[in-house]
Amino acid sequence: MKVLVSLGGNAILKHGQKGTAEEQSVNVQNTAKHLAALLRRGERIAITHGNGPQVGNILLQNEISKETLPPMPLDVCGAESQGMIGYMLQRALRSELGSGAANVPVATIVSQTPAFRNPTKPVGPFYTAKEAKQLRESKGWRMISDSGRGYRRVVPSPTPLDILERDTIIRLFETGTVVIGVGGGGVPVIRDKDGKLRGVEAVLDKDRTAALLGKTLGVDTLLILTDVEQVFINYGMPDQRALDRMTVQECKKYLAEGQFPSGSMGPKVESAVSFLSDSNGKRVGIASLEMAEKALDGRAGTTITN
Amino acid sequence: MKVLVSLGGNAILKHGQKGTAEEQSVNVQNTAKHLAALLRRGERIAITHGNGPQVGNILLQNEISKETLPPMPLDVCGAESQGMIGYMLQRALRSELGSGAANVPVATIVSQTPAFRNPTKPVGPFYTAKEAKQLRESKGWRMISDSGRGYRRVVPSPTPLDILERDTIIRLFETGTVVIGVGGGGVPVIRDKDGKLRGVEAVLDKDRTAALLGKTLGVDTLLILTDVEQVFINYGMPDQRALDRMTVQECKKYLAEGQFPSGSMGPKVESAVSFLSDSNGKRVGIASLEMAEKALDGRAGTTITN
Repeated sequence: MKVLVSLGGNAILKHGQKGTAEEQSVNVQNTAKHLAALLRRGERIAITHGNGPQVGNILLQNEISKETLPPMPLDVCGAESQGMIGYMLQRALRSELGSGAANVPVATIVSQTPAFRNPTKPVGPFYTAKEAKQLRESKGWRMISDSGRGYRRVVPSPTPLDILERDTIIRLFETGTVVIGVGGGGVPVIRDKDGKLRGVEAVLDKDRTAALLGKTLGVDTLLILTDVEQVFINYGMPDQRALDRMTVQECKKYLAEGQFPSGSMGPKVESAVSFLSDSNGKRVGIASLEMAEKALDGRAGTTITN
Repeated sequence: MKVLVSLGGNAILKHGQKGTAEEQSVNVQNTAKHLAALLRRGERIAITHGNGPQVGNILLQNEISKETLPPMPLDVCGAESQGMIGYMLQRALRSELGSGAANVPVATIVSQTPAFRNPTKPVGPFYTAKEAKQLRESKGWRMISDSGRGYRRVVPSPTPLDILERDTIIRLFETGTVVIGVGGGGVPVIRDKDGKLRGVEAVLDKDRTAALLGKTLGVDTLLILTDVEQVFINYGMPDQRALDRMTVQECKKYLAEGQFPSGSMGPKVESAVSFLSDSNGKRVGIASLEMAEKALDGRAGTTITN
């Protein structure tokens, strides 16, 4: 089976950890065990990953040391995090696979993702001018006047359009390399009027780019590994229910009902829908890292099909 | 012609610059112009680069913010710098080549270099004697007095033995990708007794790894671009002389005479000797970035042959 594994942040750094190199190294080594298990049973895998905590820390280091050193913009910090996480994953997976029989190449491709230029999106409820002012001050939110109906929070949310290194990633995947790419959703770039590429200070949704990468690679399965066991509906309510299977139709229905929080499960389910539309994609598994193998067989997590 | 271009630090950040993203972006765009000129005349190129100023700044950011965030070790910082510089080079070269006819793939491979430990090399900022003492005690760093300008941390500068991602780099190069690899000499790793790979807090000499990469790729020519026009003998003496051509024999003779400083031209000439021994290597050019094209034709810089 051809599988794109999308690793959540917890595959690298767990909630509550400080983020030392040792902690991350131990987590990544554990992640590599699960990935190696997939390779040993003959799956062909590509890997993409989140970078939230890591790029957050790099940004904060830049901010703290800005009196001494010129701070790098978000796109450059994102590229740094791709190097950092790619290295840790490569090293751990290479260690796990050993240098013997299972000597499949493992390589990270620093990746750029052209994205829409106007990367803001209003989210959440409408507020009055006074409430908007308070939220700006207390939370640092960007608030805009929306359609004359009041004020709303806007968040950067560029839509990935392409992956600049797609040819390279495809070529490596097709020739048997475990390719790690489009980390953190890729570094968002835009093309100026004169054709020059420019980095954008924004963060791409890694789940959204994972769907694009999965289609680009023509994989059968997108395996989204996160810190929950399954997708739930009516979460936190008396009639809460874990879902073993969902169709794309059900996904759309639940999304419309607002069943999935926009910061966590929402983008994953949207990504599943996108991956299964207009592509070779047959199946999406959403599961915990520990259940990766079982989820691939539909024996754990939530399996989404057309 | 198959050419490995080894970019000196000044191709990315020039002496005396602060190191802002804008400065680096402008420098890298200029570098990309010269690289694109080589591609347009039909050369097949791979690229490697130094990372001294960048990894130094990342280390210093880690140091300054250590009360807030756990500092990353040198190997992880090196991987970050590969992501950062690879991204900037890719973006600039992609911009320069445009999206039209010359649409050759450009990709950075995060690279690990298994290495011996022994020699040493100063890295990062200068400290006072008092700070140096504290760092020795608190971190166990080795500190040396460097050129009378203060104290610096010294790290092992091991000999590169192999490039873990060699198969991937070769495959991409052979199929026409402009591959950027082994940045900063690669992240140095060693294999523990149990076969696990471990990062080493060390800096590899990029010139030394460039020779290894050039042999690995089987290129004809290694083009070392730096901030001087040519190799000199009797530098700074009344009989100072710039060399248009050198043989490997002459290189060895001059090296034995101590003609080349160990921090700058020495490793480049050693790298040339290494590249031209036991390989397909026919020629090494040492020249300034601006003279890249002419140097390839033997009309600028110093040309070294067997």
